[in-house]
Amino acid sequence: MASIIDPWGSSLPEDYEKIVREFGLETFDARLFPEPNKLMRRGVVFAGRDLKRIADCIKEKKPFYALTGIMPSNDRIHLGTKMIIENLRYFQEHGAQTYILVADLEAAAARGVALEEARQRALDFFIPAYIALGLDPKKTLFYFQSENMDVIRIGFQASKKITANEFRAIYGTNDPGRIVSAVTQIGDILYPQLGERQPGIIPVGIDQDPHIRLTRDFVNRTRRLRFFPPSSLYVRYTPSLDGGLKMSKSKPEGCIMLPEDVKTAVKRIKRAKTGGRDTVEEHRRLGAIIEQDMVFELLKQHLIDDDAELQRIHDEYKAGRMLSGELKEIACERMRAFLELFDKRLAAARVLVKKGGLNFVRYKKAAGLEESKR
Amino acid sequence: MASIIDPWGSSLPEDYEKIVREFGLETFDARLFPEPNKLMRRGVVFAGRDLKRIADCIKEKKPFYALTGIMPSNDRIHLGTKMIIENLRYFQEHGAQTYILVADLEAAAARGVALEEARQRALDFFIPAYIALGLDPKKTLFYFQSENMDVIRIGFQASKKITANEFRAIYGTNDPGRIVSAVTQIGDILYPQLGERQPGIIPVGIDQDPHIRLTRDFVNRTRRLRFFPPSSLYVRYTPSLDGGLKMSKSKPEGCIMLPEDVKTAVKRIKRAKTGGRDTVEEHRRLGAIIEQDMVFELLKQHLIDDDAELQRIHDEYKAGRMLSGELKEIACERMRAFLELFDKRLAAARVLVKKGGLNFVRYKKAAGLEESKR
Repeated sequence: MASIIDPWGSSLPEDYEKIVREFGLETFDARLFPEPNKLMRRGVVFAGRDLKRIADCIKEKKPFYALTGIMPSNDRIHLGTKMIIENLRYFQEHGAQTYILVADLEAAAARGVALEEARQRALDFFIPAYIALGLDPKKTLFYFQSENMDVIRIGFQASKKITANEFRAIYGTNDPGRIVSAVTQIGDILYPQLGERQPGIIPVGIDQDPHIRLTRDFVNRTRRLRFFPPSSLYVRYTPSLDGGLKMSKSKPEGCIMLPEDVKTAVKRIKRAKTGGRDTVEEHRRLGAIIEQDMVFELLKQHLIDDDAELQRIHDEYKAGRMLSGELKEIACERMRAFLELFDKRLAAARVLVKKGGLNFVRYKKAAGLEESKR
Repeated sequence: MASIIDPWGSSLPEDYEKIVREFGLETFDARLFPEPNKLMRRGVVFAGRDLKRIADCIKEKKPFYALTGIMPSNDRIHLGTKMIIENLRYFQEHGAQTYILVADLEAAAARGVALEEARQRALDFFIPAYIALGLDPKKTLFYFQSENMDVIRIGFQASKKITANEFRAIYGTNDPGRIVSAVTQIGDILYPQLGERQPGIIPVGIDQDPHIRLTRDFVNRTRRLRFFPPSSLYVRYTPSLDGGLKMSKSKPEGCIMLPEDVKTAVKRIKRAKTGGRDTVEEHRRLGAIIEQDMVFELLKQHLIDDDAELQRIHDEYKAGRMLSGELKEIACERMRAFLELFDKRLAAARVLVKKGGLNFVRYKKAAGLEESKR
């Protein structure tokens, strides 16, 4: 088992602690999992639900699944998605049957993307991008929502078991569009259990936790269907380069997407908010305030795989021996290498996808979903 | 054009007038349609929406459709359904492309009927029963909800255009199960327009009007999709034989289902509430109170096709020359003949269905449904 290092503050920022408390999450403990990945080791993964169930599957080599989705309404993907894939890959390497769903029904209804266009975007970009980020297509089953009526069937069932008050308590609304999306997500989350009931883990952003909660409520209410409640795993947001909580397309100056033009990325990193002091003299004397440094966060979350190397940079920078400009140089260099590698891998993955190297699941009309009341 | 006779009171009972007013329906006028069927001529059809649009299609021989559904969760069908099919048949004979959908997703989710069981019930009983009641299978397209993702697609779209308040105003609830059912019904109602936009008519019970309203609201709100708002046609309830507003399985003594054991039906008719007077002498002198006679209503709605014959019975009975017992004899005899004919036709229709004599529609992924916002 790898050593558990977290030199960058094992305590969670207040915002995240509040989330863990309010939503009733488990605080993540990397010792639970064998060979934790860098996001786990570094506290970027900060919480989850029912994680021991998944750890046990890994240790005892029992069947389980991991699942995430593609919303094919954009042209690029977010660095947050890169972390989701990194975690998905961890579970895939540790025995999970992996599922990637393309939320084309949702994209069509909510964003006006025609199904055919959604399919093309998924095949031309999103799936190759996920492969470029480490997903093993040979160990992955793919589906389009618009071709998977089993998902819809589970959603229908779920809708009958959820009350208006319960939905409002979780989502703060009874909007029909939100309800239809949410029950369909329940379908997506539980679909891999239709063939054989088994635990599953959904690595997601914390903003997706309501779907996890609703699904767990549904599972707990319909014990006769024998679904396992889904486990989940949450990563911190990648902060905006200007210091905001969350990198977002709506503030492009603080945001790096995939793919990204190297020059744009370098320019944005150079303007990022750092934890450097006002003068070199002061910086040398006091050292950097690492907790406020967006560039170090970028290195930690995305650009440096080796813990020892990150530790060295951390120590140098914190001690004031490394300046913010030097840290940015490292980050720009690593980002350039990462973006170039991503482009190369993306091109290769596109060829693979074009050759038909994906496994799609088909509508099975699996039995055992209806609870007979007769 | 047939003469428009309505000797049994052209004014609607108060309950129905209230419905017409409150829901903003059109009062039905049989003169609108060529060769109106007996339900139209006799005021059993009492209201509708956008009927001129359909009448124009008939007169100008323009394409339109008629649609109804099967809820395959019961073993028998209701006399109300018999009237729906009679109206459906009218439109079919006047040029409508007819659709019959099997609501197996809904039956599975709401009533715990497994999809395979729902399919068997539809093929073994409901579809043959509809054919036995006059549906022409050669002019009908059938589908199972669980095989028609286009329906789901429209439902998804619709869910995004409907607010929680609007839904509550129509249905009195924001229950997720109701919402999912309702948007799926919007999908069913508009599905025939996916290939080519055209008017359509849905003959339904008045209790189904909320779905019509919601669908019309959705259509009017998404003009770019160019759907025609659905027209609808409403029949009165078949009253319970004991005088209640509505025949219902929950009060079996007042109810005749299809199929029905002849002896049971005869026994129930013999116990029915009539408009006969307390004594023969009084009956001869004052005549029957036809408006309160459940047996006459049964003849009018279901058992006598010929207007002249019904008129003769009406006049005799109203004048007191015919006694309630004699009326019941007529009704029992007609019911026996009808039930025996139904059984015979049902058997023949089953053979037809088993031979594969139905046309099923398949998932088309029709274009033109997404409203691009890009």
